Amino acid sequence: MTPEALRKLLQQVRRGTLSAEDAVERLRHLPFEDLGFAKVDHHRALRAGAPEVVFGPGKTPQQLAAIFARLAQHGTNVLATRVTEEQFAAVRERLPKAEYHPLARAIALRQQRKKLGKGKIVIVSAGTSDIPVAEEAVLTADVMGNDVEHIYDIGVAGLHRLLANRRALMDARVVVVVAGMEGALPSVIGGLVRVPVIAVPTSVGYGAAFQGLAALLGMLNSCASNVSVVNIDNGFGAGYVASIINRL
Amino acid sequence: MTPEALRKLLQQVRRGTLSAEDAVERLRHLPFEDLGFAKVDHHRALRAGAPEVVFGPGKTPQQLAAIFARLAQHGTNVLATRVTEEQFAAVRERLPKAEYHPLARAIALRQQRKKLGKGKIVIVSAGTSDIPVAEEAVLTADVMGNDVEHIYDIGVAGLHRLLANRRALMDARVVVVVAGMEGALPSVIGGLVRVPVIAVPTSVGYGAAFQGLAALLGMLNSCASNVSVVNIDNGFGAGYVASIINRL
Amino acid sequence: MTPEALRKLLQQVRRGTLSAEDAVERLRHLPFEDLGFAKVDHHRALRAGAPEVVFGPGKTPQQLAAIFARLAQHGTNVLATRVTEEQFAAVRERLPKAEYHPLARAIALRQQRKKLGKGKIVIVSAGTSDIPVAEEAVLTADVMGNDVEHIYDIGVAGLHRLLANRRALMDARVVVVVAGMEGALPSVIGGLVRVPVIAVPTSVGYGAAFQGLAALLGMLNSCASNVSVVNIDNGFGAGYVASIINRL
Amino acid sequence: MTPEALRKLLQQVRRGTLSAEDAVERLRHLPFEDLGFAKVDHHRALRAGAPEVVFGPGKTPQQLAAIFARLAQHGTNVLATRVTEEQFAAVRERLPKAEYHPLARAIALRQQRKKLGKGKIVIVSAGTSDIPVAEEAVLTADVMGNDVEHIYDIGVAGLHRLLANRRALMDARVVVVVAGMEGALPSVIGGLVRVPVIAVPTSVGYGAAFQGLAALLGMLNSCASNVSVVNIDNGFGAGYVASIINRL
Amino acid sequence: MTPEALRKLLQQVRRGTLSAEDAVERLRHLPFEDLGFAKVDHHRALRAGAPEVVFGPGKTPQQLAAIFARLAQHGTNVLATRVTEEQFAAVRERLPKAEYHPLARAIALRQQRKKLGKGKIVIVSAGTSDIPVAEEAVLTADVMGNDVEHIYDIGVAGLHRLLANRRALMDARVVVVVAGMEGALPSVIGGLVRVPVIAVPTSVGYGAAFQGLAALLGMLNSCASNVSVVNIDNGFGAGYVASIINRL
Amino acid sequence: MTPEALRKLLQQVRRGTLSAEDAVERLRHLPFEDLGFAKVDHHRALRAGAPEVVFGPGKTPQQLAAIFARLAQHGTNVLATRVTEEQFAAVRERLPKAEYHPLARAIALRQQRKKLGKGKIVIVSAGTSDIPVAEEAVLTADVMGNDVEHIYDIGVAGLHRLLANRRALMDARVVVVVAGMEGALPSVIGGLVRVPVIAVPTSVGYGAAFQGLAALLGMLNSCASNVSVVNIDNGFGAGYVASIINRL
Amino acid sequence: MTPEALRKLLQQVRRGTLSAEDAVERLRHLPFEDLGFAKVDHHRALRAGAPEVVFGPGKTPQQLAAIFARLAQHGTNVLATRVTEEQFAAVRERLPKAEYHPLARAIALRQQRKKLGKGKIVIVSAGTSDIPVAEEAVLTADVMGNDVEHIYDIGVAGLHRLLANRRALMDARVVVVVAGMEGALPSVIGGLVRVPVIAVPTSVGYGAAFQGLAALLGMLNSCASNVSVVNIDNGFGAGYVASIINRL
Amino acid sequence: MTPEALRKLLQQVRRGTLSAEDAVERLRHLPFEDLGFAKVDHHRALRAGAPEVVFGPGKTPQQLAAIFARLAQHGTNVLATRVTEEQFAAVRERLPKAEYHPLARAIALRQQRKKLGKGKIVIVSAGTSDIPVAEEAVLTADVMGNDVEHIYDIGVAGLHRLLANRRALMDARVVVVVAGMEGALPSVIGGLVRVPVIAVPTSVGYGAAFQGLAALLGMLNSCASNVSVVNIDNGFGAGYVASIINRL
Repeated sequence: MTPEALRKLLQQVRRGTLSAEDAVERLRHLPFEDLGFAKVDHHRALRAGAPEVVFGPGKTPQQLAAIFARLAQHGTNVLATRVTEEQFAAVRERLPKAEYHPLARAIALRQQRKKLGKGKIVIVSAGTSDIPVAEEAVLTADVMGNDVEHIYDIGVAGLHRLLANRRALMDARVVVVVAGMEGALPSVIGGLVRVPVIAVPTSVGYGAAFQGLAALLGMLNSCASNVSVVNIDNGFGAGYVASIINRL
Repeated sequence: MTPEALRKLLQQVRRGTLSAEDAVERLRHLPFEDLGFAKVDHHRALRAGAPEVVFGPGKTPQQLAAIFARLAQHGTNVLATRVTEEQFAAVRERLPKAEYHPLARAIALRQQRKKLGKGKIVIVSAGTSDIPVAEEAVLTADVMGNDVEHIYDIGVAGLHRLLANRRALMDARVVVVVAGMEGALPSVIGGLVRVPVIAVPTSVGYGAAFQGLAALLGMLNSCASNVSVVNIDNGFGAGYVASIINRL
Repeated sequence: MTPEALRKLLQQVRRGTLSAEDAVERLRHLPFEDLGFAKVDHHRALRAGAPEVVFGPGKTPQQLAAIFARLAQHGTNVLATRVTEEQFAAVRERLPKAEYHPLARAIALRQQRKKLGKGKIVIVSAGTSDIPVAEEAVLTADVMGNDVEHIYDIGVAGLHRLLANRRALMDARVVVVVAGMEGALPSVIGGLVRVPVIAVPTSVGYGAAFQGLAALLGMLNSCASNVSVVNIDNGFGAGYVASIINRL
Repeated sequence: MTPEALRKLLQQVRRGTLSAEDAVERLRHLPFEDLGFAKVDHHRALRAGAPEVVFGPGKTPQQLAAIFARLAQHGTNVLATRVTEEQFAAVRERLPKAEYHPLARAIALRQQRKKLGKGKIVIVSAGTSDIPVAEEAVLTADVMGNDVEHIYDIGVAGLHRLLANRRALMDARVVVVVAGMEGALPSVIGGLVRVPVIAVPTSVGYGAAFQGLAALLGMLNSCASNVSVVNIDNGFGAGYVASIINRL
Repeated sequence: MTPEALRKLLQQVRRGTLSAEDAVERLRHLPFEDLGFAKVDHHRALRAGAPEVVFGPGKTPQQLAAIFARLAQHGTNVLATRVTEEQFAAVRERLPKAEYHPLARAIALRQQRKKLGKGKIVIVSAGTSDIPVAEEAVLTADVMGNDVEHIYDIGVAGLHRLLANRRALMDARVVVVVAGMEGALPSVIGGLVRVPVIAVPTSVGYGAAFQGLAALLGMLNSCASNVSVVNIDNGFGAGYVASIINRL
Repeated sequence: MTPEALRKLLQQVRRGTLSAEDAVERLRHLPFEDLGFAKVDHHRALRAGAPEVVFGPGKTPQQLAAIFARLAQHGTNVLATRVTEEQFAAVRERLPKAEYHPLARAIALRQQRKKLGKGKIVIVSAGTSDIPVAEEAVLTADVMGNDVEHIYDIGVAGLHRLLANRRALMDARVVVVVAGMEGALPSVIGGLVRVPVIAVPTSVGYGAAFQGLAALLGMLNSCASNVSVVNIDNGFGAGYVASIINRL
Repeated sequence: MTPEALRKLLQQVRRGTLSAEDAVERLRHLPFEDLGFAKVDHHRALRAGAPEVVFGPGKTPQQLAAIFARLAQHGTNVLATRVTEEQFAAVRERLPKAEYHPLARAIALRQQRKKLGKGKIVIVSAGTSDIPVAEEAVLTADVMGNDVEHIYDIGVAGLHRLLANRRALMDARVVVVVAGMEGALPSVIGGLVRVPVIAVPTSVGYGAAFQGLAALLGMLNSCASNVSVVNIDNGFGAGYVASIINRL
Repeated sequence: MTPEALRKLLQQVRRGTLSAEDAVERLRHLPFEDLGFAKVDHHRALRAGAPEVVFGPGKTPQQLAAIFARLAQHGTNVLATRVTEEQFAAVRERLPKAEYHPLARAIALRQQRKKLGKGKIVIVSAGTSDIPVAEEAVLTADVMGNDVEHIYDIGVAGLHRLLANRRALMDARVVVVVAGMEGALPSVIGGLVRVPVIAVPTSVGYGAAFQGLAALLGMLNSCASNVSVVNIDNGFGAGYVASIINRL
């Protein structure tokens, strides 16, 4: 039932062609979602500053480009994650302003550039192999309107490098920490800062790393109380959570 | 908003003290659940013939008895699963008609005895240790208004006992198969009958049974296509699913 | 021993050329399955309306086509699941009426079109990546003679889309819910409907999805009592179970 | 090296009894932590509003009471989690103002009551068995100076109860969702709100719940992008993370 | 249908009071297990020398004693595994000849003492904690009519003890090896002997032993080709398999 | 020290050119394996009738052919498992009598054809996809000098096919059962026969089959006591174990 | 064969009462371990300074005391790990000099006090709950003749405490690091020191700590190259490995 | 703050242009890592004899060559592990003295050849498939300045080969044992030697080897007390740990 339909119904009541009792009955069985709830949602991304997002794997370049173009019509920023260069080529043909970020393996189309985050998001990664996941977080936070700083290649076995970046960490309003292998970095950084730390385990490592399980378990058991965790390799999710925290 | 409140609003519209347009606005922002949706649910058990159910573990005898008594006021059948004799003693004080089923470790209060199932539910268990789970399924199906037959102690390593019960199996409209250890029985029975088989893995076994994991995985990988699976030791769930199928 | 052979033996007894005692001995050692049991089974698919099914992976196009053609001789519908286009090309050469369903990655040969299901089976999938598994369920239920409706791309994080389809769900006699990642959809839908829900976890997701394990465990622990579960990615099994329930 | 020692050294430099070059050498090898870094940390809880926290299991009542009393001397709030009534009895003897929260199984000593959080933290739990973990989160957030609202017993299989609380959820600045079994609730709530959702899996359930593993995996794979996760049963961690977000 | 019943039917045919055709029909629908198949099984233990076996856990002393006594009526040896002294006390009251084997935690009633095994079964255990499982194997093999020799406390980290027993191992017709922790002993012994080695992982160990998983996986991956494996702590199974091999 | 060297030493003692005391010292520090122990082993395959075996994966065709040819010089049968056609081509160039068994993915060179097994080994497989593993077992048992019979495509969901082969199973001295998915077949067959059953789980299946884990756990938890288990897909091991049992 | 027996044999050869050939034969079949190999081992603990060790769990006080007393007769130090006070009471009755270490849950009897380690072993533990495991390592290293220093309650989330102890760590010849939860401490310490780090995961933690699995995986994936790992809670093993390294 | 900056500050103090009190304040807030700590680390590899190491996977040949060349400027030995021949080709163009070790899949550039290890490191591997991991350990230990001996293809099922190498093992100051499948070799060798044994599980095996999990668990549960473990396939780590032990 659209608002128009509802208006008609109420006018029938007003005109006396429908009794209040009957109207109650008809309204009682209304699918509630027709009362505007869904409509609100249609504009969610626009109002909330969240980008429209599409996940690349399993889609042909043509499929991805078609979805990307459709989402772009909403006027919001659009992000495609885990895409190949072939997928990007198809997107670029339709949307020449779309940009490919090879480290992040992502496509971004910026149609809005308003700054929405109140402070700085600092994104730290432990090893060079963690950079693709970290860059996905950086790009997500950037597309969602944040100041982002990234600090790469800081391992817990080299505390001096970590401590040398303490000041930058202290300036953050939210910190994202991306690490594979033993996933210890969020605990160490969590102990240095007083802001929320979003931990992202990565599938970097081999053997008993079990595709990120070791890092995931390590982060879930962090002895630092300000750490919460997202899925293995989920740089997008970490950037998203950090962004909505930074808007508060 | 209760139906009464809605009726008042509509009468205001009728009397012209509220414009249709304003009514649309007020209704649009109504929490939809107030339009009777929740109320319908209040009567769910009554109309659907589903028993009210309470899960025993972690509740004191007094807590369990209080919840049980409150549920009993709806006039439906009430079932408490995984209860101790102490918990039952507390229930019986309040509801003398409640019955304890020691094998099923369950309490049933029957306030409705209408037959709701169209055919017979046959519940098979593999070993004597599986009987508590099977009895929970038997009792659930019984309380939900079904003809139930149980066949116990039929293992796949003793085909003759299984085949000796083939006729009973053939008469079933739904079959529930309860088995621990390797959990092979649902596959064998699934191959003998043409009706749905609900498989219940149990935590019976030791070592590589891993508290029912072996049986669970076995049942999920059944080579019989008519088998679907519920949680380990979930006799209640199997009895419930079988009952709603038997009402179709 | 065929019935004919048995008849001969009995006629020998009748004529006195075989003593009752000797006949007992000969019958005692009869492989019992020769007494008609196996024969019944030969006609199982024909009488029961179950399609003959072949699983594609690991078979060469020629092998698949040969098996498919042999099964087709029974006159029943034939279904090949998880097949490639190359495998289909080989089948089509032998059976020009066989149809390829690319979304379902399946081949169907319809030789019977009788409606066998009593109500409608509604098949819901959570994300676009779950569609191949859902389509396998749709095709299976369709080939088995059911009215099937599919509702795609309904996630638990977007309740309005789910609720917008509530009416369609309410019309179902059986619901199949296909979901990867956290596998929460069957619980939500199970709470909305009163009919059996067959849950199909998919291997969609990454990281801690562990190839469908997260969805599988979620579905097995569903707080909705009307949910039972089949193997990860087992769209065929879900369609099959739904079909036999819908015939009851 | 304490500040006093450093002052002496510098005075030696000033007086010329130590060359700048030698002072550089001596300072270069200083254990850096003596330069006040550790001291800053001593006052961490006081300045940051974080409570001093002690974990109860494995400590005798006397040990717990001794640690609790020592922490209380800092003048901050003190929290002891997962404690028994025996442990509380020992604490109360030393600190009569300490309060026991039986649902949360925690002791709190409030020495500061300043409101530090900017908005409201809403804490939702799925089932009655999840309440202890939820109450631990509630108490933590409360002790850390937040407005806290709790909404209990909202399951995904009963959407109407969830939707009836939508307005309260909409008012939250941070939401904590506590759920066992399939752990689907954070996804559903994450889809309804635009603020950060901290998900807490609980060990509630049996069989394939695997002591909270099912809920944990479900939450990590949430299809709602605003969800991050803490350890199984870690109500304290969720309350802590929510509190530091709410101070931003 | 018993053989007697069959004989009557055939005599009816012979006398002409039943047509061959009708007899065919009646036999066709006979439950085949009535043709002597099941009966054969009734005497399985007696003829095969397999003991009747009952598993103790979860049975009250009275239940166990009742089952034990019933099985004893067949005249075969009877074995009860994983029993308590309380359970034994109840058995002894009914069957004074039953013997309790405290190391094996088992009760044996010997009613037959015929030697059925052709050679010697040697049972080796790695550590003192593995002895209960090893003794269960020893007792099973003994009750099943074998010469059994046991060699205890031979670890792979003390090769000299192992090699000192090489001659005894060489004399075995079948070897059972019981080991927890890393479960390496079957590989080493498998390399020394040319006969079948039945490996029994035990739940002995802690930490990464994971209740016998480490030993189980080690034994399944044995580099000795003559090793096959039974369930964790399944001393009975190993003794049983060794016994039927030793009868060949 | 070879026997010749030992003889020389003893002759020195005899001639008095070496004191007994000195000889003791020299012998005490002898590497004991030089006393003929190792030598015995050199002839192990020859005397024991075990084939020399080489595992194909990870070896270049040239490497495999070189190893194969070296092993062939011992005059025993030689078996190469899990080989490719390319590897076979390299072997055939050196050893024209070597034969490739495509189903078993193995190369066999028969240099001895003596019958070493006393009875028949029956090898059963559950599904067509299990055939490569079963054929590896068949070939191994054949090369080791056994009468082998194979029965393929017998699933537990089609008992009639299983029972139709009961007589063949009854004739076996050892049975090997190869099955993937739920791995239930060894239990069913174990209940039908009285001889040892060697169970081989296969990695056939998908989803919750977890590459053979489901079948492995099922077989380890078999309710038939005459079942022991080898590694997933280890057809060679099963054939080997069956062969050494069949020689007893 | 003892050296004496060998000497006799050689004297027979010398005297000509045994031919060299016959002596070769008799020696060839000698169990090689009789040539002094085993004897060496008998004195292993004495010469090597390794304590005799007995594992407490599963032994009655009397059994433990008997084993302990027997081992004490060798004159070496004796260590009993994971013992109860009851077990100690039984030991003390026989050996009044035995000492109970309640934190380490161990009994030590020192019969040798020679310093065998060349440098200092520093044992670090992360949390107070890890102390029992750390103390077991401390006691083991102490009983094995080492200078031992322990530093407790150093977590990675409080770097200042860690860095404040840097000098003590720098003085170590071997470091043992004991940590539960995320097990990150060995990586951080491994990066600070240049000596071997033995990492001991503990079962401390809850939820996704999975009884030490998280810490174990974290340590195995340490980004510090000087870290090796022992079993969960294996303080004894860590102290032992550290001791034998410290003797080099 | 560089030493130069510190010197300036101290000279200001000396000249009286900065009070001691103010200098204390400024130094107190110094980032401690500027006090030379990091600088020390810059020379770590040079002074410690540790090679610079780069991990090959995921890097393009050009990236690897660039990193390799930069590390080479420090004058230390440089090691690249898990590299392809293509990666080596790129390195060789820049650094003609770099050598490729195909078995170890590694590149080594030796710029220092000083012997740093005090004794011999013996590296043992169980099967031919374990050689790449073992060779990585050999090369690492060699590049770090050790005498290295390798003994390959020693399995626990062939004790004679193991015992034949006992003397070589006895000469080792540190032993590295590399094994896949059941991972039993470290226990056996640990029992033969008195020096530290570094165990390396490999991913060699199939089925229940679970990519090295079986070997890893076996080694962690070793009954030999002198065994510690590194990650699956981590030959580099084992060589590194052995090297730093051998320098003590």
